[in-house]
Amino acid sequence: MKKPKRDIVDSLDFRSTNFENTGKAMYELAKTLFPICRSITGQGFRDSLQILNHTLEGGGNLQIHSIKSGTKVFDWIVPPEWHIKDAYIITPDGEKICDFKKHNLHILNYSESIDKEIELDKLQEHLYSLEEKPDAIPYVTSYYKRRWGFCITHNERKKLKQGKYRVFIDTKHDESGVLNYADFIIPSTQNSKEEILISTYLCHPSIANNEISGPIVTIYLAKWLLNLKERKYNYRFVIVPETIGSIVYIHKHLQHLQKYTKAGFVLSCLGDDNAYSLVHSPSQNTLSDKVALHTLKNKENFKKFSFLDRGSDERQYNAPLVNLGVVGVCRSKYLDYEEYHTSKDDLNFISSKGLMGGLKAMQEIVLNLEINETYKNTIICEPNLGKRGLYHTLSTANDIPLACNFLAYCDGKNDIIDIAEILNMQAYEFKDLLEKILEFKLLQTSNMKT
Amino acid sequence: MKKPKRDIVDSLDFRSTNFENTGKAMYELAKTLFPICRSITGQGFRDSLQILNHTLEGGGNLQIHSIKSGTKVFDWIVPPEWHIKDAYIITPDGEKICDFKKHNLHILNYSESIDKEIELDKLQEHLYSLEEKPDAIPYVTSYYKRRWGFCITHNERKKLKQGKYRVFIDTKHDESGVLNYADFIIPSTQNSKEEILISTYLCHPSIANNEISGPIVTIYLAKWLLNLKERKYNYRFVIVPETIGSIVYIHKHLQHLQKYTKAGFVLSCLGDDNAYSLVHSPSQNTLSDKVALHTLKNKENFKKFSFLDRGSDERQYNAPLVNLGVVGVCRSKYLDYEEYHTSKDDLNFISSKGLMGGLKAMQEIVLNLEINETYKNTIICEPNLGKRGLYHTLSTANDIPLACNFLAYCDGKNDIIDIAEILNMQAYEFKDLLEKILEFKLLQTSNMKT
Amino acid sequence: MKKPKRDIVDSLDFRSTNFENTGKAMYELAKTLFPICRSITGQGFRDSLQILNHTLEGGGNLQIHSIKSGTKVFDWIVPPEWHIKDAYIITPDGEKICDFKKHNLHILNYSESIDKEIELDKLQEHLYSLEEKPDAIPYVTSYYKRRWGFCITHNERKKLKQGKYRVFIDTKHDESGVLNYADFIIPSTQNSKEEILISTYLCHPSIANNEISGPIVTIYLAKWLLNLKERKYNYRFVIVPETIGSIVYIHKHLQHLQKYTKAGFVLSCLGDDNAYSLVHSPSQNTLSDKVALHTLKNKENFKKFSFLDRGSDERQYNAPLVNLGVVGVCRSKYLDYEEYHTSKDDLNFISSKGLMGGLKAMQEIVLNLEINETYKNTIICEPNLGKRGLYHTLSTANDIPLACNFLAYCDGKNDIIDIAEILNMQAYEFKDLLEKILEFKLLQTSNMKT
Repeated sequence: MKKPKRDIVDSLDFRSTNFENTGKAMYELAKTLFPICRSITGQGFRDSLQILNHTLEGGGNLQIHSIKSGTKVFDWIVPPEWHIKDAYIITPDGEKICDFKKHNLHILNYSESIDKEIELDKLQEHLYSLEEKPDAIPYVTSYYKRRWGFCITHNERKKLKQGKYRVFIDTKHDESGVLNYADFIIPSTQNSKEEILISTYLCHPSIANNEISGPIVTIYLAKWLLNLKERKYNYRFVIVPETIGSIVYIHKHLQHLQKYTKAGFVLSCLGDDNAYSLVHSPSQNTLSDKVALHTLKNKENFKKFSFLDRGSDERQYNAPLVNLGVVGVCRSKYLDYEEYHTSKDDLNFISSKGLMGGLKAMQEIVLNLEINETYKNTIICEPNLGKRGLYHTLSTANDIPLACNFLAYCDGKNDIIDIAEILNMQAYEFKDLLEKILEFKLLQTSNMKT
Repeated sequence: MKKPKRDIVDSLDFRSTNFENTGKAMYELAKTLFPICRSITGQGFRDSLQILNHTLEGGGNLQIHSIKSGTKVFDWIVPPEWHIKDAYIITPDGEKICDFKKHNLHILNYSESIDKEIELDKLQEHLYSLEEKPDAIPYVTSYYKRRWGFCITHNERKKLKQGKYRVFIDTKHDESGVLNYADFIIPSTQNSKEEILISTYLCHPSIANNEISGPIVTIYLAKWLLNLKERKYNYRFVIVPETIGSIVYIHKHLQHLQKYTKAGFVLSCLGDDNAYSLVHSPSQNTLSDKVALHTLKNKENFKKFSFLDRGSDERQYNAPLVNLGVVGVCRSKYLDYEEYHTSKDDLNFISSKGLMGGLKAMQEIVLNLEINETYKNTIICEPNLGKRGLYHTLSTANDIPLACNFLAYCDGKNDIIDIAEILNMQAYEFKDLLEKILEFKLLQTSNMKT
Repeated sequence: MKKPKRDIVDSLDFRSTNFENTGKAMYELAKTLFPICRSITGQGFRDSLQILNHTLEGGGNLQIHSIKSGTKVFDWIVPPEWHIKDAYIITPDGEKICDFKKHNLHILNYSESIDKEIELDKLQEHLYSLEEKPDAIPYVTSYYKRRWGFCITHNERKKLKQGKYRVFIDTKHDESGVLNYADFIIPSTQNSKEEILISTYLCHPSIANNEISGPIVTIYLAKWLLNLKERKYNYRFVIVPETIGSIVYIHKHLQHLQKYTKAGFVLSCLGDDNAYSLVHSPSQNTLSDKVALHTLKNKENFKKFSFLDRGSDERQYNAPLVNLGVVGVCRSKYLDYEEYHTSKDDLNFISSKGLMGGLKAMQEIVLNLEINETYKNTIICEPNLGKRGLYHTLSTANDIPLACNFLAYCDGKNDIIDIAEILNMQAYEFKDLLEKILEFKLLQTSNMKT
């Protein structure tokens, strides 16, 4: 089967003239977002949303929402809003270490305040380090149990001497605060009610692949979608703090999501250039599974994960009583790379090329969803394709032309992704051919399968 | 996936204090049953039933039934009751060989009487030996065609010289006799009507694995079940002569069995320590198939057989118009071990350890059946497991706790065996966790699948 | 599983006394048909039909039909009738080459007339040869675009010198002519309405495997079917010019074919002795697929092809709005052998043995279709087969007799092909056993599956 040579994604449906610089622009955005100290609540999260909104450049506006701390959402309570001013340790020698202002991973995320002098052995109970990755600061959180603590490289920890340490953490858990999240809908150009859900999370502090790459790719996907001439579906973008944020969102929109969601994707860890990963839904057989597997499976270093390997908001979207059939899409998947949840997951771990690959994968998924439809022939027996310029006129060419193979499988049951699988192509690669065939009125849509 | 360390079967649901000695006790019972000459009818069969009944120790009583010889059962006639007093051959040298009193396998089982002098070449027509196993006496029966004969080792047969042999067999086929069989029902503690069928056969004479191991494991399984605090199902135990016995039993109970049998197991060859075997039902997809495969497949030397390899009463229980979806459970399966149907299948071939393994396999099957149910979450989105002590409170532990994984698959469609397969565990291993989860009211039963 | 020793097809259901010479007779017929110049229309096609009709020897008559050139059939127009009188080239040296009278492959099939002198470089545009097969004349057609041309070996082409060539082609495209095709129905002996479709094509000129072998095997299959005592199905034989002929045939009979076709086979390339090939229908799961795969898969050098590898009239019979679930049956499949569509596919490439193998494969397919039925036991539990001579009476024989295995799977859901697959046999091999079992009234037909 010959494959089209040109790079279809680059040539197809792009009007944004500055698109060639997208990879660089995404990486620049990463540099802006990286230093901010985010958590599931608080100013860092809000600031980051504003930067993302600004990146949309007037193409649309993120709707930024808030919900009060203490609100009950299903089995959960929205936690207090967390504020941090400063955090550090003064060693017996007077050295300032674990300085939050130098690296915001030093603070146990969501830590409570402390200000006292303690002995080293008492301090040890509040230190987190990784013996097997001795020069990395781990990323640790304690959202649902109140603790204080610091994260430190194991090498530095080993050097600590006996003596009195001053520990200082200036944080606040504001019970009358809020939790923020945002959404943004790009409407169908065909008045459809059906939606594609794109969800990502923004609550991690200075970690690059996990997780500023997800929101960055999400925003650039939205920018690209805004420029498409035609959109069969509505696209619902959701940016939340992980877990509690998606629970809040589902709590508010459950009925609507269940009624209109055609497919859904949780975008995470999309900035490195080492792999493409798919986290399946529990049943593995939703449209989301089908289109994502179809799109990603032939990519270099593709890895397929079961729902057992889940770890992000697909947990909530796929909970049995929610059941949206959502999949996770990553490059190197969380928990599956060495640098995960440490200071090593930094701006060097991701790249312009990695982010561009993540964006392109999502664009291909969108194009495959948009073209996917179930058609049925209008003509009994094979149509005479020769007279329409779609078949060779001499018998010396023995192969059956693509148009003929494509039509042979348009039986009202196979959708275009099914046919693309049979013909070893990507569904969106049929775009030009399908337009010609529809012009010739050789196919009609069939509503037997969607 | 971490597996529970403790041996759950030994700790779970046992109250019988002398249970640790069960293996030895089963082997002692084997020694008692082994010498008795059984056939499909007659005193040996009745005596063996009494011994089994006594072993129940008042926990219950085997119901011993009889049906008159000559009774029509479906396509069959209950055969005459067979009695044997003595059988031997006197060689030309005056030596007594093939002495029934020394080994009851010497007599062709169900043989007719004879008392005469014949030449060696005539005698040869009535001798059965195995050239390829020259020092084993074969076990041979002729139930549905009247013959007389002796079984002999091939080595002994080769030594026979020309001359007159006196053949003496004193048996009787009593047309006004009976065929016996027994059953015994252990009731559900929950007033269920549904039954688990446990069937075994007792008609073989001095053969150990095939077949006194089956009835022995059956009786000890019953003793253990009697001691369980809770039983979801009724347990119907059936002890019959092979083939004709199960036909008689089905003839009497067909409608009831078809209405209430939830799963069924034919227990046979459960005394050696060399393998675990499953004989599938014709469709391979009944609950019996599912639970037995789930339980046995990871055991050492597990072997899976198709229904083509059947050989015992599963033939009748699975006949197309009976269709109970029953499977066979064995350690080394009949026809699949060297010693099968010979004098080598003796008390040395089985062992206390082998019988205990057979019993344990059946206990695990019962525990898996008992726990199996289809549940559905009660809470939308993941429940907050941390506040119930079922989730770690620090993000350093990256794995998803078992409770969370378990709940993620309780979607009203997966039953617990399905979920155990996904999580690479045995269904019964969820017992403690499930109790906790039900206490927290995080699940409700679903009737979509059973 | 023991397999019957005798060659069942040779002994089963044949009454024609001269049948042993069938292989030779088929090869003789090939010699008669080979030299004729056929095309999709014209005298050669008609003459060939007459020869085939004569071969039926009064057993029946091919119904020879015609349709006027210019008639619209679905998306196509029946082309003009083509006549050829002569065609050749005179070289500058006065030599006559590409002489149609010496080998009819020299003419571009369906070529238009020409009579003029041209330079070599102009001539080259009208020559067809195969560089990679330099001593073969290719077979080339141009049915739907008017051209003139000659086919020539590449070796001969390379020797052509500069100079004036006289090209002479005397053909006619008669707009008021006809296209011919034939059919022939062998009726069911049981008044069934259901039909088996056997379709082949006859439009190729002097090519042996592709395609006079197909019509030859078809006619001898018909002769054999006429002699069968019993036929459950009607057999509809169709002999057409490829593509346009089957479109014409479907146009005329679509409703009837869709209503009554139980299974269908396109017979092509059935004369060599190198392989057996199956071209699946698009869904791969029709009765045609099932019976053909069952029959052919254990044959030497069996090759299975997807519908993507189709190339003959199965394209029309399986077009989505026709959807007859037809498969292609070949020995070496078109496009899958070196000699395909060249002068090398000649009488040396096929053989008496090859044709006989092709015929036998089709006879086995027919026998498997004829016997195939879904039965259900009449007796509850296993029947007593011993009293009917279908079971051994001594327990020394450990294997379960075929009758018992066969009955065990007659559950009203498995058809005989399913059971044959389970028992590793051919369905038709059950014939004698099934007759005995039906005599004993142990089975009844079931209408749950056909």
